[in-house]
Amino acid sequence: MASEATAIPGHAAGVTKAEAVPPTRPGVIAAAVYQNGQRLRDIEIDEAGQWRGRENVVIWIGLHEPDEALLRQVQAEFDLHDLAIEDAGKAHQRPKLEIYGDAIFVVARTAHMAGDEILFGETHLFVGRGYIISVRHGASTSYMAVRQRCESSPAALAHGENYILYSILDFIVDNYMPVVEAIHAEVEELEDKLLRDRLAKADIERLYLLRRNLLRLRNAVVPLVDVCRRHEHLELPGMDAAMQPLFRDVTDHVRRVQEDIDALREVLAFTFEASLMIGQSEQTEISRKLASWAAILAVPTAIAGIYGMNFEDMPELRFRYGYFVVLAVIIGLCVTLYRFFRRARWL
Amino acid sequence: MASEATAIPGHAAGVTKAEAVPPTRPGVIAAAVYQNGQRLRDIEIDEAGQWRGRENVVIWIGLHEPDEALLRQVQAEFDLHDLAIEDAGKAHQRPKLEIYGDAIFVVARTAHMAGDEILFGETHLFVGRGYIISVRHGASTSYMAVRQRCESSPAALAHGENYILYSILDFIVDNYMPVVEAIHAEVEELEDKLLRDRLAKADIERLYLLRRNLLRLRNAVVPLVDVCRRHEHLELPGMDAAMQPLFRDVTDHVRRVQEDIDALREVLAFTFEASLMIGQSEQTEISRKLASWAAILAVPTAIAGIYGMNFEDMPELRFRYGYFVVLAVIIGLCVTLYRFFRRARWL
Amino acid sequence: MASEATAIPGHAAGVTKAEAVPPTRPGVIAAAVYQNGQRLRDIEIDEAGQWRGRENVVIWIGLHEPDEALLRQVQAEFDLHDLAIEDAGKAHQRPKLEIYGDAIFVVARTAHMAGDEILFGETHLFVGRGYIISVRHGASTSYMAVRQRCESSPAALAHGENYILYSILDFIVDNYMPVVEAIHAEVEELEDKLLRDRLAKADIERLYLLRRNLLRLRNAVVPLVDVCRRHEHLELPGMDAAMQPLFRDVTDHVRRVQEDIDALREVLAFTFEASLMIGQSEQTEISRKLASWAAILAVPTAIAGIYGMNFEDMPELRFRYGYFVVLAVIIGLCVTLYRFFRRARWL
Amino acid sequence: MASEATAIPGHAAGVTKAEAVPPTRPGVIAAAVYQNGQRLRDIEIDEAGQWRGRENVVIWIGLHEPDEALLRQVQAEFDLHDLAIEDAGKAHQRPKLEIYGDAIFVVARTAHMAGDEILFGETHLFVGRGYIISVRHGASTSYMAVRQRCESSPAALAHGENYILYSILDFIVDNYMPVVEAIHAEVEELEDKLLRDRLAKADIERLYLLRRNLLRLRNAVVPLVDVCRRHEHLELPGMDAAMQPLFRDVTDHVRRVQEDIDALREVLAFTFEASLMIGQSEQTEISRKLASWAAILAVPTAIAGIYGMNFEDMPELRFRYGYFVVLAVIIGLCVTLYRFFRRARWL
Amino acid sequence: MASEATAIPGHAAGVTKAEAVPPTRPGVIAAAVYQNGQRLRDIEIDEAGQWRGRENVVIWIGLHEPDEALLRQVQAEFDLHDLAIEDAGKAHQRPKLEIYGDAIFVVARTAHMAGDEILFGETHLFVGRGYIISVRHGASTSYMAVRQRCESSPAALAHGENYILYSILDFIVDNYMPVVEAIHAEVEELEDKLLRDRLAKADIERLYLLRRNLLRLRNAVVPLVDVCRRHEHLELPGMDAAMQPLFRDVTDHVRRVQEDIDALREVLAFTFEASLMIGQSEQTEISRKLASWAAILAVPTAIAGIYGMNFEDMPELRFRYGYFVVLAVIIGLCVTLYRFFRRARWL
Repeated sequence: MASEATAIPGHAAGVTKAEAVPPTRPGVIAAAVYQNGQRLRDIEIDEAGQWRGRENVVIWIGLHEPDEALLRQVQAEFDLHDLAIEDAGKAHQRPKLEIYGDAIFVVARTAHMAGDEILFGETHLFVGRGYIISVRHGASTSYMAVRQRCESSPAALAHGENYILYSILDFIVDNYMPVVEAIHAEVEELEDKLLRDRLAKADIERLYLLRRNLLRLRNAVVPLVDVCRRHEHLELPGMDAAMQPLFRDVTDHVRRVQEDIDALREVLAFTFEASLMIGQSEQTEISRKLASWAAILAVPTAIAGIYGMNFEDMPELRFRYGYFVVLAVIIGLCVTLYRFFRRARWL
Repeated sequence: MASEATAIPGHAAGVTKAEAVPPTRPGVIAAAVYQNGQRLRDIEIDEAGQWRGRENVVIWIGLHEPDEALLRQVQAEFDLHDLAIEDAGKAHQRPKLEIYGDAIFVVARTAHMAGDEILFGETHLFVGRGYIISVRHGASTSYMAVRQRCESSPAALAHGENYILYSILDFIVDNYMPVVEAIHAEVEELEDKLLRDRLAKADIERLYLLRRNLLRLRNAVVPLVDVCRRHEHLELPGMDAAMQPLFRDVTDHVRRVQEDIDALREVLAFTFEASLMIGQSEQTEISRKLASWAAILAVPTAIAGIYGMNFEDMPELRFRYGYFVVLAVIIGLCVTLYRFFRRARWL
Repeated sequence: MASEATAIPGHAAGVTKAEAVPPTRPGVIAAAVYQNGQRLRDIEIDEAGQWRGRENVVIWIGLHEPDEALLRQVQAEFDLHDLAIEDAGKAHQRPKLEIYGDAIFVVARTAHMAGDEILFGETHLFVGRGYIISVRHGASTSYMAVRQRCESSPAALAHGENYILYSILDFIVDNYMPVVEAIHAEVEELEDKLLRDRLAKADIERLYLLRRNLLRLRNAVVPLVDVCRRHEHLELPGMDAAMQPLFRDVTDHVRRVQEDIDALREVLAFTFEASLMIGQSEQTEISRKLASWAAILAVPTAIAGIYGMNFEDMPELRFRYGYFVVLAVIIGLCVTLYRFFRRARWL
Repeated sequence: MASEATAIPGHAAGVTKAEAVPPTRPGVIAAAVYQNGQRLRDIEIDEAGQWRGRENVVIWIGLHEPDEALLRQVQAEFDLHDLAIEDAGKAHQRPKLEIYGDAIFVVARTAHMAGDEILFGETHLFVGRGYIISVRHGASTSYMAVRQRCESSPAALAHGENYILYSILDFIVDNYMPVVEAIHAEVEELEDKLLRDRLAKADIERLYLLRRNLLRLRNAVVPLVDVCRRHEHLELPGMDAAMQPLFRDVTDHVRRVQEDIDALREVLAFTFEASLMIGQSEQTEISRKLASWAAILAVPTAIAGIYGMNFEDMPELRFRYGYFVVLAVIIGLCVTLYRFFRRARWL
Repeated sequence: MASEATAIPGHAAGVTKAEAVPPTRPGVIAAAVYQNGQRLRDIEIDEAGQWRGRENVVIWIGLHEPDEALLRQVQAEFDLHDLAIEDAGKAHQRPKLEIYGDAIFVVARTAHMAGDEILFGETHLFVGRGYIISVRHGASTSYMAVRQRCESSPAALAHGENYILYSILDFIVDNYMPVVEAIHAEVEELEDKLLRDRLAKADIERLYLLRRNLLRLRNAVVPLVDVCRRHEHLELPGMDAAMQPLFRDVTDHVRRVQEDIDALREVLAFTFEASLMIGQSEQTEISRKLASWAAILAVPTAIAGIYGMNFEDMPELRFRYGYFVVLAVIIGLCVTLYRFFRRARWL
């Protein structure tokens, strides 16, 4: 294969993979040429155009938050559409798939866990005959792992840019899973707290933030279902029928993620409703207790108040055991009331 | 028929059904060959390939949580697709139907009652010309009952793998019914408690768990409607038109289950709302009672307080029947207030 | 026409309609043969087969909760499909329309008022060329009224089984109307109570049961829209274009019922929300009153408490009109507070 | 044109428009014949048939709650379908459009303001080649205004029955607008009251009735969108392509009405939620105030109570300025508590 | 190009762009003729007709709340449809796209921030071969900025009226963004306040108004998706395929705006629910505190009341340290209760 590489004009013969220098230009993470699934050599961006259109050759470039100049250079090398380049220059695109002539432009939102936090990012992909360019924005994981996995199965990689596209989409969707699981774990914790104990204000805040994160994740995932489905249904230029089961598999995974998200959203809605019900039932219980004790304690207050009056002629005050009788009456009434409220399950 | 069996190379002639040894390999529940609806003999997994493609022969293998090696062996024997095998190796798939060439791969979620508890499982089915392989995961019921029922009606079983597929789907859907009924019974119990008495915190917890279980059941059932409908509409390779009414019947049952689940979900939403309304009305009632009694008991407190003051010149204190008059006034006011609140339906 | 009847082998000539004996077999409500819209004679189930397939003849059998044997006999006479017969043997089917060859099987849920109560039932209909068989389950109204109405317009009845099918569906849909009206009346009563007075717990229970009944009615009606629509669109075997306006009319009625049900459901949701709002506003009002009176009554309690202290040196106690001044102050403060709370609309 | 009119057999020559006698039969509001957009003459119902089918002639009859006999006569003159006539005889139809051969039957619900009240009515329209018959039920506005407007633009009216149909539908839809605006004004008033002050029970009742009226209006308007859309798309017999922009305009207006209704419904839902939030926040505020004052007033009560005890040996009672010290302590504690609650924003 | 301009009859040769007089007629903001993307000259409305139909010439007129006369003149010059002109004369249209022959009529609602306030406006666009007329109503931004941007890229502007249409739609959609962002910022502020502190009545009012504004914005944006999509799919007369990516870009932006709006709406719904939960939890907490303090303070009241009674024979009163013992008991009980409530987390 190295003999083929030597045939490229302007490149010293015998440059082998091991000698290739990693691209050091800022914004370029990796840029390599593959032939029949084997990495031929690393390239500079400005060499890319020379490699285009060769049989069984695919150019795979990975960029991270490239500057305007770099993007324009890439555009020039691959004849990319102006609007797609403009989109790729800024984040905050909707996940989508757009066809420009015989090239496609894919936008996907990524999500992964960094410790306790969910980090959202965005990846833009330019895919055309013989090349694939990924542009990452924000806190997304590098696709180096995808590259390594692809390089380790040259037979698959020989399918070209569509296999790489599949691998990246698969990687993105796989990365959603731990995020969903982390949210799932937190939901279960809150659920447990709700049912065993009660939700404090901090828990309500967590609940609130979970709902927001799920919403954001859902907005990332749902449009991706359509992107994957269009690949699966071979609606795109240059799509290889042998790729269909692979893209169907991704579609299926992303649907599974969506189903999990929707289930979690519904569970959080149940949690809200259960929390309202429990809160209301607690409130009623407290009111009942408050009313019961108020009634019980009103007895000594009222009776003692009466015998605390200073009338000159209050015969009971002079009764021999008046005080003790009154004490007994007070205690008797209190006990009776207490029992009454217990029976009524107010206490 | 045994004579045909003897024709298989590498197998002793005269092996009869009675002599067949049940498969003992872990993960394999049953593996048998049927011809024209009659069980020909039990087989080992590695014999399966030899039986494929024969006229009127169907191989039926039942696996339970097979290990990687077993799955790979099955794959080799039946030329199954890599992705389907990967899916079958792990649970947590969405219910779905996928076509790989002339074979189909079906995923269904199962549910059945074990005492008071709902157990969820997953079944994966590989169906192709002349074979059907079921792979069970988690707490699912064995399909031995299906096998026995099929074997007892050879005429039907002679329709081959599609009839077996129908029988398994029918069995799965039938098993949903008692789950729905158990939930139904519990909902009615809660409903009764809500309307006659009041929901305690434990009841709200049960309500909450019912909603979660219904959600989970719904997520199992709803995608199955589509799986069954595609069978009914003969959209699949090798599907026999005579099977159509059978699959339509399953579709109908699964829709009926879905309708029941949706009705129960709505009833639980009503229960939530009714519970809020009842809770609120109770709370208001308690507040009314509390306010009424507070007002009534404020009378003796205020009056007695006044006559408990130590002013030197308080003429009433020296009136002959002052004490009794005041007592009468207190009692009179209290009775009047009490009647007032009764009329206002606060008490 | 009687002369034609005599032509049937195995039947005495001259049997006239008047002489026909009503079927006495349990489960059979009525079984008769019609020719060109005229009732020819009543028949036994086992004669039915002989009448099939004759020009302009339609056999109309009405069953009520038939036993297995009767159903099997009917099946034999009319070559009905096994699965449809199995369905017809048990209630709890979804409303649906299924085509078996050139026969159709219709399931409808019925509802009618019996005093204050809504009774739900189920009717299964087998319709094929020259025959119609109705199977009623549960508390459904007899179709004798339909039969009489059909017999009274022979020109229409001459259209055969499709006209009878139309008449029965029309009758079922017409019977929904009084149920909807009864619910409507009850909703308006509750609404009135809510807005004029307040909902007691018994009213909330009625509200809850109304919602459940509406849900059940809706589940009966909604799938019937599709059943009727398929008749209207002539998607069925042997359907006569002249019948189209009739079936469109039924579709329209059932849609009207559905719209009414949906409106009532929404009204009940409004009722729930209005009840929450009124309840909350009442609760706030009570709290305001409670707080106001507590504040007013705290004045005499606090002041009297102070002058009830036993300090030796409390100069006010010895003032000439001290008591009266304090009384005046207490009354003055109470009146001031009362006015303040009135102005603030707390009282 | 008058010369053409004289050509009609059985009619005196020279009958001119001015001489035409307004129809006095109860139920008939107006009945006239138009030719090329000019009113030819008023007619009796039983003459109508003679005018049918003439070139460029359109018969326009307006009925209001006609009796059975009148409807049957109209049916006979225009060969109308039985089912449509049955529908037209009673109100409470769903808005719809039905095709009977080359005639169409349209049902629309009308709404207009009469003072503060919304009055709902129903209009049925029979439209066929050369004639249009409107049947009004309930409290609907007369279409005399439409007739006058049509007569004042003969060029447009010359398009015949479809132009009249358009004019009536346009009039019906235009009449919705003031209803929506009246509801809109009332919603804004309630909104204002909610945000500035608080909702009294009477306001909640108004809110409730607004929601009901909106629901009813929506049920009138939504099916009309489809009726108009079918006209716009020329799906109907005898529809003139020149009419398309007119019907599109009506469709657009009715959609605009629907959008306004939906926006108002959503606003009322927001109002409900805001009212709950405000109510809850008020309730909490009151509870806070109540608790604060209870705490403050408990101080004198408790302290005075202690020094009101009659123990023989209570040294403080004999202190020289004991009373004043205690008074000062009470006032000091109360002020401290008051400040504390102010700082905590409970007071 | 100026030489071509001189060829227009009735116009002095050599009129150059610099000499063109800005239109001063009220209602006309700008009116100019462009050829091959270059501004040829400013024109009066009544000259417009002369310029129509020339090769590569496009007339671009901008109106702002034109009076009837001006609109009629424009109609005459461009043969616009009556209904479109009627629509254009009044605001309050739904966003829509209508085709009249080979011209289209577009209605869009605009929104932009003016300080803290959202201002809504409406723009109507008439687009036909060789001309585009914009009619602004209400508080919308002038399209002068669009005109300048177009004039600065003549190559693009040479595509004619469709490019201008794209530029205006793009400008309208771009103007939504800051509105969405402003709402977003306010939502986050409220969210913060809810979670850190509590919502005051003024905050609930802001929340309410945010929901209303979002609803209004949504009603402006959602129908525009369809308008843009129809341009993207080239369903319109005279649409140039080269414009497709541009219109797709607008569609994408407007969808992005819609997604943001929907996310904000959902977040506000979460905020409502979280606010209810927090409110309820606060209410419960206050009730608990109130009940706890009421219980603690009832102790001295009850005990002191009893020893304040005036019975002659109350032995405790004569005990040596009776008073101090009672004081100690009171304090002891209060402390015990206080600790109890702390442990129960009621205080």
